Amino acid sequence: MTLDPMSNDAVEVTVDGAIAHVTMNHPQTRNALSLVMMRSLIDVFTRLGERSDVHAIILSTAGHVFSSGHDLKEVRGADHPAQQEIFTTCSDLMLLIQRIPQPVIAQVQGVATAAGCQLVATCDLAVAAESARFGTPGVRIGLFCSTPMVALSRAVPRKTAMRMLLTGDLLGAQDALTHGLVSDVVPDEELAEATAALASKVAEASAATVAIGKRAFYEQVELPTADAYARMAEVMADNAVMHDAQEGIDAFLTKREPEWQHR
Amino acid sequence: MTLDPMSNDAVEVTVDGAIAHVTMNHPQTRNALSLVMMRSLIDVFTRLGERSDVHAIILSTAGHVFSSGHDLKEVRGADHPAQQEIFTTCSDLMLLIQRIPQPVIAQVQGVATAAGCQLVATCDLAVAAESARFGTPGVRIGLFCSTPMVALSRAVPRKTAMRMLLTGDLLGAQDALTHGLVSDVVPDEELAEATAALASKVAEASAATVAIGKRAFYEQVELPTADAYARMAEVMADNAVMHDAQEGIDAFLTKREPEWQHR
Amino acid sequence: MTLDPMSNDAVEVTVDGAIAHVTMNHPQTRNALSLVMMRSLIDVFTRLGERSDVHAIILSTAGHVFSSGHDLKEVRGADHPAQQEIFTTCSDLMLLIQRIPQPVIAQVQGVATAAGCQLVATCDLAVAAESARFGTPGVRIGLFCSTPMVALSRAVPRKTAMRMLLTGDLLGAQDALTHGLVSDVVPDEELAEATAALASKVAEASAATVAIGKRAFYEQVELPTADAYARMAEVMADNAVMHDAQEGIDAFLTKREPEWQHR
Repeated sequence: MTLDPMSNDAVEVTVDGAIAHVTMNHPQTRNALSLVMMRSLIDVFTRLGERSDVHAIILSTAGHVFSSGHDLKEVRGADHPAQQEIFTTCSDLMLLIQRIPQPVIAQVQGVATAAGCQLVATCDLAVAAESARFGTPGVRIGLFCSTPMVALSRAVPRKTAMRMLLTGDLLGAQDALTHGLVSDVVPDEELAEATAALASKVAEASAATVAIGKRAFYEQVELPTADAYARMAEVMADNAVMHDAQEGIDAFLTKREPEWQHR
Repeated sequence: MTLDPMSNDAVEVTVDGAIAHVTMNHPQTRNALSLVMMRSLIDVFTRLGERSDVHAIILSTAGHVFSSGHDLKEVRGADHPAQQEIFTTCSDLMLLIQRIPQPVIAQVQGVATAAGCQLVATCDLAVAAESARFGTPGVRIGLFCSTPMVALSRAVPRKTAMRMLLTGDLLGAQDALTHGLVSDVVPDEELAEATAALASKVAEASAATVAIGKRAFYEQVELPTADAYARMAEVMADNAVMHDAQEGIDAFLTKREPEWQHR
Repeated sequence: MTLDPMSNDAVEVTVDGAIAHVTMNHPQTRNALSLVMMRSLIDVFTRLGERSDVHAIILSTAGHVFSSGHDLKEVRGADHPAQQEIFTTCSDLMLLIQRIPQPVIAQVQGVATAAGCQLVATCDLAVAAESARFGTPGVRIGLFCSTPMVALSRAVPRKTAMRMLLTGDLLGAQDALTHGLVSDVVPDEELAEATAALASKVAEASAATVAIGKRAFYEQVELPTADAYARMAEVMADNAVMHDAQEGIDAFLTKREPEWQHR
């Protein structure tokens, strides 16, 4: 694996077959989401979103801490427009991750706090090392985790979110799994391998089908049930007449491997 | 128990006291939700919904598999209008189950996949055998489970749903209970008995009260909280002046058994 | 601790430093939510909501039962306007608890049923004794728990709520924790101490920050995700330029204790 040219000082990107590895590489700030880091991630996810050869994305970080959230040195002393720039950029990044066609899988070691926890909550899937912990401790320093809670409160039950938000206490990996913040927990030493295996499994599918499904998921989840069904019945009919669905169904019925057009 | 006249080739119905047993009877297709099967279920649920002698409904299936979802032989080669017919009929069935006055309890053995998993997610309650498993594997054959995810993503946390949708991996019964896809898990050999006991308990209540509550549940859950309270305060006041509420309250306060008008 | 003058016959209030203890004191009716009790609570929470010296509120009850819900003697024989008065007052109380600036923590022993369970679901946090149990048994007496389910169905998964609503069965404390109805479970003998410790932790934070966060939580959770981010980015920018955020961030970066303006 060689570094992809879209890499930059903050974020390393390698593409290995159909899987892109995006690595936040700033352990000296515990992978803080500085403006530079957030803009780098926005640039990288935007470009990856346009690449038809990439079918799944792993978001990992270098060092012992997944991410400590915003760069507090940037927040200290900033005026209101500068603060808005920070939090709007952060929100844009989170929305982008759910809008690109490929599933994004967080690979989480150490602690993921504040906007770092938000990143985990935002990714489509998240694999946590069993020693990983999650928190939204902004309240302890006078800055409530109000943007992180948008993602957090859509991932876990309200009381779970409120407890994290009002105390700053860390949630362990097993509790994060029980309550829905992560999708997988694995032994620490198997983290990279297990995340890669999950990404490979996701990437085996028709990329066109996965893109339809991911987009449809976030659309329907915000609609009233009857409206959601009306839209999803259309989505399924459109999907069902596509090459890859007809190929996949025929392969299944005739017990052979499918050959995707959209790989 | 004798077969009720509303039974048809695909679906057997027996009525035992206040409880209707609806059984999908097509083990040779693993109880696939063919158009015939879906229309049969729509017919049966519509008729049961109008019967005041039926106070709870158990939905079970014959054979080792609960249901494998849509009949892929119907989906293969169908044109767009035919696909729309399939998925609209399926959505109509799911909405109907939540709209009829009686609670519907899924009794789940084996595997429940794709629209079969959607049926479980849709029923008001679901009792699973401890060996039962649940999945939405459409992505593996090029046809994302976009209609099933309407029910799935309203039953379980987002990451749980996404993991099932993006990998097709099966969820075990205990995890299904933890995450909210089923309401009960019981030893395999006690499945029918435990489901019948749950249905009997539900059917002991005033049918008028249960009908009010079921309708109100799905109405309020889609409203903003303040609007939900405004509506539910009306619903409770209307309910409280009904005979069965006044009878039930008086029976409770005077330590006697209530006699329901609406049984 | 001496009784605060806002105390009344139904509800005792003591203020201990930054923490208010609100105690429903009617064990002879199992702390039933009579109109007198609900109006007393509304009065107390309204006044506490205006007090800047109170930073967290513990809601507890006297006796072996947390609360048995509405006073059925009031519901028996009441006409429709009287019923509406009862359930509208109850809804007003629940909305008020989420609208006041301070976090409200339920301290739950024994059983919490019907509107008593609703109170627990409504509070921002809830600490349960491990022997505590929760239920919505109105269906058994002909009066479906339609207002309680507004809070319940926003706290726990739909199947968990439906099972409680349709059967009246009690949910144990550990299951309540798993499914999100409570935020903490502790040994029975540590209930008061553990709740006080949690309240103290919450009250250590800047009260201005906590108030922003609590209000923002209930606002954003009902918005579509993109709208929620647009609002929360504003909220965070406004929060970030406040004294307490800048003080807290500087204290964190320079490894000293913060001094809040808004304590």
